[in-house]
Amino acid sequence: MTERVLVIGGGGAGTAAATIAKRLKPSLRVSLFTEFEDIAYSPCGIPFVHGREIPRFEDLFLSTVDRYVADGLDMRMETVVTEIDLDRRIVTARNQHEGFDQLVIGTGFTWEKPDVPGANLDGLHYVKNIRLAMEFDKVLDTVKTVAVIGASPLGVEMAGNLGHRGLDVHFVDEGPWVLSEVLDPDVAQPVHESLEKRGVTLRFGTKVEAFLGDDRVRAVATSDGEIPCDLAIVCLNKVPNSALAVAAGLDVGTTGGLIVDERMRTKVAGVYAAGDVIEVPHGLTMLPIRGLTGSHAYAQGRTAAANIAGEDRVYDPVWIPWGLVGGDYTIGGFSIGETLATAMGIPYVLATGVGVSRARYYPGAAKTHVKLLAEPGTLRLIGAQLHGGEGIKERADFLAFVAKRGATIEDLAWMENIYSPPIGALF
Amino acid sequence: MTERVLVIGGGGAGTAAATIAKRLKPSLRVSLFTEFEDIAYSPCGIPFVHGREIPRFEDLFLSTVDRYVADGLDMRMETVVTEIDLDRRIVTARNQHEGFDQLVIGTGFTWEKPDVPGANLDGLHYVKNIRLAMEFDKVLDTVKTVAVIGASPLGVEMAGNLGHRGLDVHFVDEGPWVLSEVLDPDVAQPVHESLEKRGVTLRFGTKVEAFLGDDRVRAVATSDGEIPCDLAIVCLNKVPNSALAVAAGLDVGTTGGLIVDERMRTKVAGVYAAGDVIEVPHGLTMLPIRGLTGSHAYAQGRTAAANIAGEDRVYDPVWIPWGLVGGDYTIGGFSIGETLATAMGIPYVLATGVGVSRARYYPGAAKTHVKLLAEPGTLRLIGAQLHGGEGIKERADFLAFVAKRGATIEDLAWMENIYSPPIGALF
Repeated sequence: MTERVLVIGGGGAGTAAATIAKRLKPSLRVSLFTEFEDIAYSPCGIPFVHGREIPRFEDLFLSTVDRYVADGLDMRMETVVTEIDLDRRIVTARNQHEGFDQLVIGTGFTWEKPDVPGANLDGLHYVKNIRLAMEFDKVLDTVKTVAVIGASPLGVEMAGNLGHRGLDVHFVDEGPWVLSEVLDPDVAQPVHESLEKRGVTLRFGTKVEAFLGDDRVRAVATSDGEIPCDLAIVCLNKVPNSALAVAAGLDVGTTGGLIVDERMRTKVAGVYAAGDVIEVPHGLTMLPIRGLTGSHAYAQGRTAAANIAGEDRVYDPVWIPWGLVGGDYTIGGFSIGETLATAMGIPYVLATGVGVSRARYYPGAAKTHVKLLAEPGTLRLIGAQLHGGEGIKERADFLAFVAKRGATIEDLAWMENIYSPPIGALF
Repeated sequence: MTERVLVIGGGGAGTAAATIAKRLKPSLRVSLFTEFEDIAYSPCGIPFVHGREIPRFEDLFLSTVDRYVADGLDMRMETVVTEIDLDRRIVTARNQHEGFDQLVIGTGFTWEKPDVPGANLDGLHYVKNIRLAMEFDKVLDTVKTVAVIGASPLGVEMAGNLGHRGLDVHFVDEGPWVLSEVLDPDVAQPVHESLEKRGVTLRFGTKVEAFLGDDRVRAVATSDGEIPCDLAIVCLNKVPNSALAVAAGLDVGTTGGLIVDERMRTKVAGVYAAGDVIEVPHGLTMLPIRGLTGSHAYAQGRTAAANIAGEDRVYDPVWIPWGLVGGDYTIGGFSIGETLATAMGIPYVLATGVGVSRARYYPGAAKTHVKLLAEPGTLRLIGAQLHGGEGIKERADFLAFVAKRGATIEDLAWMENIYSPPIGALF
């Protein structure tokens, strides 16, 4: 009989799991359930369309539903799975039952709601679905002042982009600087400057106490007074969307993410989970973490798919290279910086340096600031934070890869480097 | 007694050796001999000043002689060393003898002269010394047509830059494409297109038979007819400038470069050599090679310095990340490509892919073409060639580093990657 694979979720994890399982083993019958009308677009691009750095939302679509169907996938669009029965190996959607041999849960995340009065008012917006974003973009044309709540990566991108659009942006966060729970202050500083140049008013060290208004938000009440606004964009933490899986009897870990093994398997045979709904171990601390990136979700979905298709594929603990553009300034890194190392009591030695992205006399050359954290004694890399212009992403990807393989600061100090004035500098 | 270190050569190797030895062990008396009037400029920037991408030659100076003197170095500018006596441990310069305890030979390279009639005519220019380049730049204002002889890295940069300056450039090489002895044709092709867009006439598969003219070159006679020119820039191979060392009794290897061990030591105790005058083993083949980059010269000089100062520092075999901009197009790689692997009979499997440097919808996104060569069976990386826009240099540096540490194509396929629309793409 044809083996049936059901995938719940049309984000990075679910899409990867469905498409790659089918590609690796064409005999599978693969169905993908998603509550949304669309698939295969880049939600990460949404802030940049709002900011008018990307012309059109349509640019964010990478493929069409028809294309997936043509590739042999059974696409269940706008179809919410309401129940998983792990004993009978059945899911329920639209009051119909569907049996499965193997299942992938890729239900993703929802944004944390502020736990203050007024959080249910109209005018509080959450960035996620592209159709809502299209509607929201029209609303942005009608407003002048926007509060961005939460200096998370999304918050930084939204604040910078709405400033670029010419809106009056108040960027509110309880922490003393952007991404303060993980980022080092010296790395945050140039991002602050770049955001301010875009007209963003920074309201850090400021606690949100309520959203004010009758039906619709008209101000944010904070520890530092009222901030009038026409709307508020909430960019707090990602919360794993695990209720469906928990109701089915699967377990969550300390982070609230579903527990899977290194093959993306839950405790039930043939049932996998991947993406923002799960937790995975950090390569340095081996502590479970969650709320990673689209590329992590995709790779986890791909791992599940490979194992479903009969390969034996292990997903390594994550070293998490990360990077983002705040205003016009690029920051990045991997694993931990000084702030997090200190908070976690992880001992480290620090190596710092400032280089240039091209020969210093070449047009476009930008300073590249590098902070490397290493294990005392062995000098093995355990983390980094970088900031500057071009080349930050590539360096962070590189550092995360070599840290995983045990590279030391000495290895980096003596590594071969390209020197060519337009693309790389000797000093 | 004060320990005396003499360094012959003011290029990357000699400058690194002198400055770093002094920094690591301030009690050393370090003298640096150079035939030139200047130090610490970037000769690699010269083509870009000719091309008016860099405004002024002065921009290429990174430091001054006075600064080196202030750092405690004994700088012997415009001082040619004419003899080394290894038995008496003395060098001769300006008819004076100078004793040494330790010696670094960093005499660099000279450009190969064409072995054809007319190679001694006026109007044949070699790119090296910055003062000659400044004079030459004035000459360029008076001419219209230039022949660039040799599609070496320097040739590519000169041709592209002189095209950019608006000169009528004929780019002549016997090979079928740029850098044909090492580069793959698919990687050369977009460089050709970019050069042609800059007004460069490509004359590949064309053998230079003579330079024609009475005192001064007026044309290049080739297998494909005469090419009229106002001057010719010769960009053939680098030849190790080893005569002085050989006369002193030191040995050269199969490449014509001086033989040193992995600590940059010659066969004579306390006598080191570094930079373009030496040969070093290639990390993959372990065959000696020479004619590498400024960053290799610098690192070799630094290795000699560390050992002189009492550290024990080994210079690893080279994997040679390389990159250059041809016209407006960037190419790079490390170790070997298909052309060289085939020529050397090295078996390989190939992995190819095309990515994008940013999300495909983000302004500035450029295609990134990657070819990875791996050892059959183990899939360990043995070489790569890349081409595209931004990020080529960083990827080549990265690949060379991880290849040295035994990374496989599988490791790369499953590595963590940053996905953030302005700086990195998921697909």
